[in-house]
Formats: sequence, structure tokens, C-alpha cells
Amino acid sequence: MLDFSSDYTRSAHPALLEAIAQTAGRQYLPYGADVCSERARARIRDLCDAPNAEIHFLTGGTQTNLLATAVLLRSFEGVIAADTGHVALHEAGAIEHTGHKVLTLPHENGKLTAAAVSQYCENFYNDENHDHMVFPGMIYLSQPTEYGTLYSLSDLQALRRVCDQYKLRLYVDGARLAYALAADENDVSPADLAALCDAFYFGGTKCGAFCGEAFVVPDPTKTPQLFTVVKQHGALLAKGFLAGVQFDRLMEDRLYLSVGRSAVQQANRIRSCLQEKGYLQPVVAPTNQIFVSLENDKLASLKEKLRVSFWEPDGDSRTVVRIATDWATTGADVDALLALF
Amino acid sequence: MLDFSSDYTRSAHPALLEAIAQTAGRQYLPYGADVCSERARARIRDLCDAPNAEIHFLTGGTQTNLLATAVLLRSFEGVIAADTGHVALHEAGAIEHTGHKVLTLPHENGKLTAAAVSQYCENFYNDENHDHMVFPGMIYLSQPTEYGTLYSLSDLQALRRVCDQYKLRLYVDGARLAYALAADENDVSPADLAALCDAFYFGGTKCGAFCGEAFVVPDPTKTPQLFTVVKQHGALLAKGFLAGVQFDRLMEDRLYLSVGRSAVQQANRIRSCLQEKGYLQPVVAPTNQIFVSLENDKLASLKEKLRVSFWEPDGDSRTVVRIATDWATTGADVDALLALF
Amino acid sequence: MLDFSSDYTRSAHPALLEAIAQTAGRQYLPYGADVCSERARARIRDLCDAPNAEIHFLTGGTQTNLLATAVLLRSFEGVIAADTGHVALHEAGAIEHTGHKVLTLPHENGKLTAAAVSQYCENFYNDENHDHMVFPGMIYLSQPTEYGTLYSLSDLQALRRVCDQYKLRLYVDGARLAYALAADENDVSPADLAALCDAFYFGGTKCGAFCGEAFVVPDPTKTPQLFTVVKQHGALLAKGFLAGVQFDRLMEDRLYLSVGRSAVQQANRIRSCLQEKGYLQPVVAPTNQIFVSLENDKLASLKEKLRVSFWEPDGDSRTVVRIATDWATTGADVDALLALF
Amino acid sequence: MLDFSSDYTRSAHPALLEAIAQTAGRQYLPYGADVCSERARARIRDLCDAPNAEIHFLTGGTQTNLLATAVLLRSFEGVIAADTGHVALHEAGAIEHTGHKVLTLPHENGKLTAAAVSQYCENFYNDENHDHMVFPGMIYLSQPTEYGTLYSLSDLQALRRVCDQYKLRLYVDGARLAYALAADENDVSPADLAALCDAFYFGGTKCGAFCGEAFVVPDPTKTPQLFTVVKQHGALLAKGFLAGVQFDRLMEDRLYLSVGRSAVQQANRIRSCLQEKGYLQPVVAPTNQIFVSLENDKLASLKEKLRVSFWEPDGDSRTVVRIATDWATTGADVDALLALF
Repeated sequence: MLDFSSDYTRSAHPALLEAIAQTAGRQYLPYGADVCSERARARIRDLCDAPNAEIHFLTGGTQTNLLATAVLLRSFEGVIAADTGHVALHEAGAIEHTGHKVLTLPHENGKLTAAAVSQYCENFYNDENHDHMVFPGMIYLSQPTEYGTLYSLSDLQALRRVCDQYKLRLYVDGARLAYALAADENDVSPADLAALCDAFYFGGTKCGAFCGEAFVVPDPTKTPQLFTVVKQHGALLAKGFLAGVQFDRLMEDRLYLSVGRSAVQQANRIRSCLQEKGYLQPVVAPTNQIFVSLENDKLASLKEKLRVSFWEPDGDSRTVVRIATDWATTGADVDALLALF
Repeated sequence: MLDFSSDYTRSAHPALLEAIAQTAGRQYLPYGADVCSERARARIRDLCDAPNAEIHFLTGGTQTNLLATAVLLRSFEGVIAADTGHVALHEAGAIEHTGHKVLTLPHENGKLTAAAVSQYCENFYNDENHDHMVFPGMIYLSQPTEYGTLYSLSDLQALRRVCDQYKLRLYVDGARLAYALAADENDVSPADLAALCDAFYFGGTKCGAFCGEAFVVPDPTKTPQLFTVVKQHGALLAKGFLAGVQFDRLMEDRLYLSVGRSAVQQANRIRSCLQEKGYLQPVVAPTNQIFVSLENDKLASLKEKLRVSFWEPDGDSRTVVRIATDWATTGADVDALLALF
Repeated sequence: MLDFSSDYTRSAHPALLEAIAQTAGRQYLPYGADVCSERARARIRDLCDAPNAEIHFLTGGTQTNLLATAVLLRSFEGVIAADTGHVALHEAGAIEHTGHKVLTLPHENGKLTAAAVSQYCENFYNDENHDHMVFPGMIYLSQPTEYGTLYSLSDLQALRRVCDQYKLRLYVDGARLAYALAADENDVSPADLAALCDAFYFGGTKCGAFCGEAFVVPDPTKTPQLFTVVKQHGALLAKGFLAGVQFDRLMEDRLYLSVGRSAVQQANRIRSCLQEKGYLQPVVAPTNQIFVSLENDKLASLKEKLRVSFWEPDGDSRTVVRIATDWATTGADVDALLALF
Repeated sequence: MLDFSSDYTRSAHPALLEAIAQTAGRQYLPYGADVCSERARARIRDLCDAPNAEIHFLTGGTQTNLLATAVLLRSFEGVIAADTGHVALHEAGAIEHTGHKVLTLPHENGKLTAAAVSQYCENFYNDENHDHMVFPGMIYLSQPTEYGTLYSLSDLQALRRVCDQYKLRLYVDGARLAYALAADENDVSPADLAALCDAFYFGGTKCGAFCGEAFVVPDPTKTPQLFTVVKQHGALLAKGFLAGVQFDRLMEDRLYLSVGRSAVQQANRIRSCLQEKGYLQPVVAPTNQIFVSLENDKLASLKEKLRVSFWEPDGDSRTVVRIATDWATTGADVDALLALF
């Protein structure tokens, strides 16, 4: 069975497996104070040009997003997200469980625009009743977006200006950041993220690790006693070195910047070939996810040979599915996939 | 200055003021165990034909709505509301503060339709990823709605069937219930609400009281230890008799059923007259609220003589405002109002 | 039946009843923006010598305490209270429901001592594992205490110094503050509270009002957007003038400073007389509460004629009960009470 | 440097490292639906004689404890724990962050007794004000306890009877369960836990795994939609197979039952030797933790050669420290340790 259902189906990247194997028989300080975690932090600070950044290694995207919300928002504030945003739909209400409302805006190609956020805030403050409403407190976006599209540097700078105008914080969910960094059209560096965001994370789980997301707060004076807050949310790993050793390796020789490259190339090949064959792609993104609309009959016939992700119905007789490549997808895998179309 | 801005600007109904005055020098059991509260409860149970109902007198609508959500939902569930619903917009995120998501659906004339809720639930359970999403757990609606419109008995019965099919609870916010009960077209009785809802409330604050909402749970086995939960939310009045004495009087001789009548009649007169004069009314409702779209210049010129509620912008040069009557609005008040149009 | 069970059994003080009656037929701005509330605020700021204080009128003590906790603490902090404190025992876990731990210390005569708090904080920061523990963030105390005892000005100044040393906030629950202010031995003025506390409240419900607690934040820059937070907790009264008009009257001619005087005098008389008769009083306080240990047989024999509060068992054959006077307790009431002993 | 500071300092057990290595290049279903997780679950159900048990693999003890609290308690209930319990002290208020109070009782040798819990509940329900207080809803205990001591089968049966009498749930934190199961005096089997508890967990992190706790709910009708609740708390691993593969191996050949044996034997040896040498051990437990009181000078002199855990001060000049062995502690390690004493 071919499995293109997601980028989190696979064992870890060989280099990370090797790094984990080398922990055999060793002892480490607990709770992230170990040498691997400390070295990984130093490498991330260096990559981000953010010498003061506080960095915690968490175990999943939803956990990281809810923690970011918990520490960056005050109780009367909500988070602005695209209506397609992961926090708005697919996290089982984790944000609301922290007590905060997700304020959704229509997306453009998966993205929030500075103009839409600015208009929302202007309308909010013009509403005479706004003291009775949830204040916009933060922008949540993901790079790449749920649709695999990318914010350009100028997009992010424009959003930052809106944040400064309306006292919003800016948070970037980087669950698949490696695939953004490896995309041809990308012009946003980790240092740009650190300069523009109040917090963001380097995704590990979907980018070659077994588990682990590196949550980065460039200016930690904004998030006092973050270690304790992480613990309070059940997000502190006793053996923090498990995440640390993986991020240490991902950041060594800046592997993280290249680990997504072949995934993007294979995705580009799939996109081109499906287009040539006349398949409808509702979004054409430059990263590792391909969205294609299939006749339900066609989809049914594929089910025995191919695993893909259900995305959404496209009318009554068609379904949009997602095909995802990852760092390990081979040309032969793609050949086998394309032979089914 | 004429004030038609809302139905909660005024001192209490004379009969309630009199009842409060008669408490002078008396002592009562605390925390709602007093004779007035007990008699009010008995009257409500009788009116609702709900002999087992548990009834608590709370102090405001947002408080009642958040408590209902807290006790009727499980952590993984959210509340379905019209996108115009009070809980969705104007309660400062009180529902999310209880940890629950508000799942909004487009309204029709201010109302949720059974068809829309049913379709939402069907789509939800058909989505392969629904285990990662907030489950629909309750329908929130208000009678009358935010737009002053009414659910008919058959509307509510249809919604109840959807609830039964998808294991949803049904909750009715009755902040202005007296105005619904007094409307010509209304065919929903308190006993209907008790038969169809898991919980609802008789609004006091907007219907003649100083404060107080009578929260009714027809089958209290569903909300164990509700007294303690009320206390935990800071919603328990030490001198519960203050609310009790007002509801005792509101329910005596079924005053609650008639207290909204003149307000509705005055509102009908305003609606007719504005229509004759050619004013645009985006919603025409049968209760005590009138919505009218005004040129911004017109609105500005009214500001010195009339207080109304800002509702929403209507394009760039017009604004929708709300005019509200109450049990004390006189014909002379309405004459003075209409003279301004 | 004589009822000395509490100070919240009675209708409002005649002056407040009169003030409420005078609202008849009038209209007020909603949500606390009315003239009565504004005048009450001005009077309180004047009494407290706190010209910038932000003041909200809430409806009960538990509600006020949980709001104070919610706005003054960060998520990783807890509140230090005496093990007898109201928040520790009798608020149904309202504080924990806001997400915060109550850190209890042994009381001395109902009071927290600066020495005990200081020792607790020193031990906390000396514990190598304290980053895994709840940080002390606030001191909760009540004036008078649960036992009716009083903090002196030097007590409070010493506690403030501990707060400054360990970055704690200081919050005073003034549910019965009028009885403290009227006590012979009291040397703490409202202005002292405003100068020393981050927040406190003037209790209304137990001091002559139907409902209402005046929550005072001397420096409101510490509690941004408090109005919205109040709303979010369901604590905002639509007809805020109901509380406003009562506090306006309580503060007029500084009635609040004298309203508890006769209650304290009557309580003093009860204490003396019970002592003469040889009854055991486990605490002798200078305010309106009397604690007396009775044989269970004696207690049973009183039940038909007298209502008092159960406090706690005193061994197997005795029970401590609380007798409370209030602003309306007469000498004849006390005569009748004492005739039973 | 010798490190006996805890049982979570070390890389994974060789058998688990090997199992992880064998995932190389493979793909798995996400979110715990993979074959390893399913096989691990089957083995656990078999070991526990609990064919209907629902099992989730979480990543840490605090996370598991807070989830158990969240799903087993209603909002008005708290959890009874020993005052030494991990949830009471060392989880940064994670339980309170779920909205629930920890109700502490004095421990006996680290344990809660059925008599103490029963007395607490009896007192609670006899208190006339108990409707204003947090209801006891669950017993939290750990096996072994924080002090390494064990509940016997009859201890647990007695606690279960108290649970049945007062409608409490019973939850067992098994962070170090492997060391309990390997202790000479242990008479509690996994099947006993499944029969007696509403929920419990097999600890992985401290018992040979990199990460992972197997949370077991013997009767899952009590915890509806647990998968979604896990997700909502940020506790769902996308690559659930990482935990699954480790528990699959831990349960294969019932390795979990024996993995703690040598740790206990080495601990026994340390205990005997320290006793012979005259060191004071405040608690003598039968599992892998040794508690010893040292002169502060002695402790200071050890610091360069040995890492142990600070436990608590023992007067002014002594400190209690904890020495922990694990599955990998060798006789040579112990020789080196004992040479320092």
C-alpha cells in the first residue's frame, strides 16, 4: 500500500535515528537541562540570530499552539486565525479549552492578509460595544499554511505592522517549517521569523523527527516563568534529551534547512504531472502538500492501493484529497503514485 | 433626552418595587432557601407544568448562559449558535472562558433552522477527521432572538428532533422571554419550553426586574449538585431573596405573561409608523425591538434628543440602530419618538 | 424564632431601601455607567484618597474573590491564604476553578502573619525544585477575618513589606469591612487599604445592602480592560445602578463607617455576658461575630427558638456555633438571645 | 560523576532502543492507530485481564494525571491526595489548572489510609455547609508512593470500599509501577489495579522508556470520547507509534514485570549497607528509592562525585536526599556509590 496520507507517518530521519541510538547507556540531566538540549538551543539561537531567545522542546503542534496562546494572551483577548487555520478547526477546541476565542477571518489562498486583519481591528474598535466583546490579541498563522502556501517576507512585515498598530502579538506555527524553508519561492529565513514574531516554532514531528517542536520566544521577558507554565500544562518531558538530541542533530550543519528539499521537489513533480493529466488542483502550493479534486468513483478505486488524506467534499460527486510527500519520499514512490492516476 | 436604547435602563416595575419595599425589617434564609424564592419556584414549576424542575435565580444573562454551558456540555463539546447569537458576539468570550467553542451557523432572520443544524451535524460525523474536532453538544438559541424574531412551536419541535438524533442538548436564552410571550404571533408557552429544553431561563432584568434570571432545569438529574456549581462560579446570591421576591411577584397572577404586552404594542406602532414614513427596517420582528437603517447624518442629528443602540454599519453612509420599548414605555414616549422621524 | 445565624439574612438598611424606592420611574445608563454608580465611585475614591482607583460593583463575595484572583495572578501563581480563609474552604473551589491553587498557611487567631508568609516564600525559593511548583503570587486575607479578628495597620504594613520582597500582590476581602471599621480597636482606614493593597473590596451584602461589593483597584494599570474581564465572568450587571444606588447611599455622609457600630456594640454585650455565664468562647474578636462552644444537648434545646450557624465540632459532645449581629440587631433582640443562655 | 539522582536520567532500555531502531524506513498510521500501539494495547488488556479497557499512550506523568482528573471529575469535585502526593506539590498546579482542588490528607509512610479518607468523607457530609465546599470526587494515589512505599492488595481493596461508599473514583499513578511490581513484598498485580481502579497508568519514562505512559481506563463508558479529550489537551502524539513501539516491547514477554527487579535489588543493597554504616533513613521502602538524612557538610563533600536529589531539609544542619536506582544500575555503580559513604 502506497501511503501519501501525511508527513507524519514515518520513522525518524536516519541521521536522527543514529543520534538517538548513540544515547545508549548514557545519562542526561532531566527536564531539558541536558547537553544535547542546550547545544540544540545554542544552534537555534545562532540560526535565528536571536541570542536571548528562550527555547523549549515540546511534543506536538497542538500542545505548542495552546501553550503559545496561554502565555501570549490575556484573558479578555482572542486569537485571529484564517478560517482554515489548524487552531480553528482541527485541534478539538484546544484553544478554547485555554479560555480564548478563535476569531476567524476569511483566508486568501490559505493566508491571512494584513488588510483583512487591519480592517477587522478597525471595525472592532469602531464598534461602540467592543468593551463587551473579545479583544483581538494575537495573530495566529502557519508557515506554510494549511494549504501549503507561503507568506512572503513582505506579507509578514505587513502583518507585523498591523500588530504594532493594534498591540497584537504575532505567532507562527511552523509544524512544516522545513518544507517552507526548502521551497523555491521562499524568502523568509528563521532570523526573519525571530525578528518579526513574538513566538514561533520549528516543527520536528513532520520534518524528520519522532517527536518534538522547538518553541522559540525571541524576547523571553514577555513570557515569565515559562518553564513552570510548560510543566503546568503537562508538556514538560522528564527525559527532555529525547527531543534535544533530535533537534541538536536537525540543527547541526543546518540539516533543518535542507531536510525538506527533496520532498518539495517530489511534490512539484506530482503537481506538474497531475496538471498535465488534467486533474483539478484547487490550490497550487510550493511546498510538500498537493490538493487534488477527484471523482468519488476514482477515489474509491484508489483506496486499495493508495492512502491519502480526506480534505473536504467538492460538491456531491467529488472529494478533495491531500497528497503529502516527506523527506523520505523517493522517485520510485512518486512513479508508483502517478501510475495510479 | 428620550431613551429607547434598551429594555434595561429603567428601575423595576412598580409591583416589584412594592414587593421589595415590603421586605423592610424582615429576615430571610440565605442562599435562595427563603420563602419568597421557594414560592417563586413553585409558581414557575406550575406555570411550566414541570413539577421536578430545579430552579436557580441568577443575576444576569451572560452569567446564566455560561453556567448553562458549563453544566450541560462535556469538555469535548461546543455549542451551536446563530452567528448573530449573543453568546457568539457580545459576551466577551464568556463561553470560551468556560473552555467551550461556539460553533456558529448562518442565521435566517435571526434564527437557527433545524435543517441547518442537522446538515452541520451530518457533515461533522461524515468528516473522517471529526475525532480531532469539537463535537456539537448543544444548541443555543434565544427566544426572542437577537433580532426580536420568534421561534414557533414547530420550529422548536424540529430543533428538538435534531437534538434527539445527534444527542445534543437544547438551551433557550429567555432574556426577553416576556416580550415573546406577549407577542401576537407567539405559540410557544413556558410549558412547551420546559417540555422541549434541557434548560432555559425566564429573563427578569429586561422584563421588569432590577436583576434576576430564573434558570430552569426541567430534569435536574442531568445537572448534579447545581447549587455548588452556581456557588463555584460566583453566581450564588447570599441574599437570594432579593431575586426571589421579584420572581415571586412576576409569577403571581402570571404577571410575567402580560408584563411585555404594552411594550410589544408600542413597538408595533413604531414599526408601522416608520414603515409608513419610508424608513428601511432590515428585520421586522413581532416583539419589543425595532431595527431601522438611518442615514448617518440623520443619526447624528438625533443624538441630542434620542438615545438608541448602535447595531451595525449599513454600508458607508448608513447605520442600523435598535429602538427598544419596555413595559413602561408610554404612548406619549412613542409620540415624542416618532416626532423625531 | 430569633435569627442570629448571619449578617446576610435581612432586608436592606432603611436608608438604602429609601434610595432604591426613589429610582421608581427613572432611566439610567446601563452597565454601571449611570450617575449613581459614578457618584458612588467618586465618593469611594475620596474616602480612600485614591483618585485613580478603578471601581466595579459586583454582586457577591465569592465572585469578587475569584475575579481578583483571575486578574491579579499569572497562570503559574497561587494565592496564599490562612487555612481558615473563606477562599480555602467555603467557596466551592471557585479559586481553583480559575486555575489557581490556594496555598494555605496555619492561622494565628484567624490571621496570616508576615513572619509565616515570609518563611513560606523563603523556603519556596530555597527549594531546588521550586520551578516545578506553584509560585506564591498573592496574599489573600479578610478584614475582619473569618474569626472576626482584625489586622492592625502594622500587621498590614508588615505583610506589604513581604509582598514587596517576594513580588506578591496583596488582596483584602472586605465582605464585613464595615464591622472592622466600626470596631474599637481598629486602626486601619480605607485610605490605608488603598495605599497598601493591590485590590480590596467594600462589602455591601453583609453591611446593609441587598447586594453589591465595591471592588477597588487603586492602580488600575495593573488590571487592563477590567470591564471586559468582569463581563467575561458573568459578573457585569446590566442594571448596574442597582448596586450603584446602594453604594452611593452607603458612602454618602460616610454611612459605611458607622453602619456597623451598633452591631459591634451588641456583639460586645453578648460576648461579655456569655463570658460571665461561663460559656467557652474559642475566639474573642472585636467585631460582630461571636463564637461559642456549646454542649450538643444545649444546642439541640435551642434549635426551636434560635437560629445560629454551625461552625465546627468541638470534640464529640460539643459544637462551636457562630452568633452574628448586624446593623439592625436591637437591644431587645439581644435580651431575648441572652435569656436563652 | 556518579548519578543516582533519579530514574529518568538514562537513555532507553536496550530492548526498547532496538525496537525503535527497527522502525527505520517504515510507515505507520498516525495518532496511535498503528500496529505497534494496537499490539501493545492488546498485550496490556491481556496482562490486566481487562478486555474492554481503553488505552492511550501519553508522554508524561503530569500530563497523565491532569488528564485523569479532567475526565474523571465533575466541576464541583476535587481529588483527595496524600499531602506528599506528586499532584499536591510537584506538578506546578496542573490539577488546579484543570479547575479542580487537591484535597490533602496526612500521609502514613507516604500512603493514604482508607480510614483517613472515610473519616474525611464522613466529616464532609456531616458539615451543614458542605454544599458550599468542594466535594470529594476521586482518590489519587501512586504505586509506589512518593516515598517508595507500597499499597498492599488489602489496602487498595479497603480504599475501593470507601470509594464505593462515597461515590469516589479511584486513580493510581503508576509512574514507577515497574519497581512496585518487582518488589519482594508486592502483592498487587496489574489485573488487581484494573479491577479496582477507574483509571491508572503504567509508567514508561521512569521504567525503561524514552517517553510514554500507558493510561488505562478499564471501563471506558465512563470517559466518553477520550481520544478527543486527549487531543484537546495537546497530549496526542502524531507519531503515536513512538510510544506504541516502546510499550509493545515492554509488554512483550512481560518485560515490564521484570525490568525493575535489579533496580530493587541494588536499592536493597544500598539500604542495608547505609543502615549498617549508621546512616539515618527516614523511610525504608521496598522499591528503587532510598531516602537518607545527611549532615550538610557530608552532602557538600559528596557534590563533586555524586549527584542525588534534594528532598527536604532535616532541621538546620541536615538534609534528606533521595538516591534512586534504575533498571541499568550495576553492582559496580553501587560499589562506587557506597565507597563514598
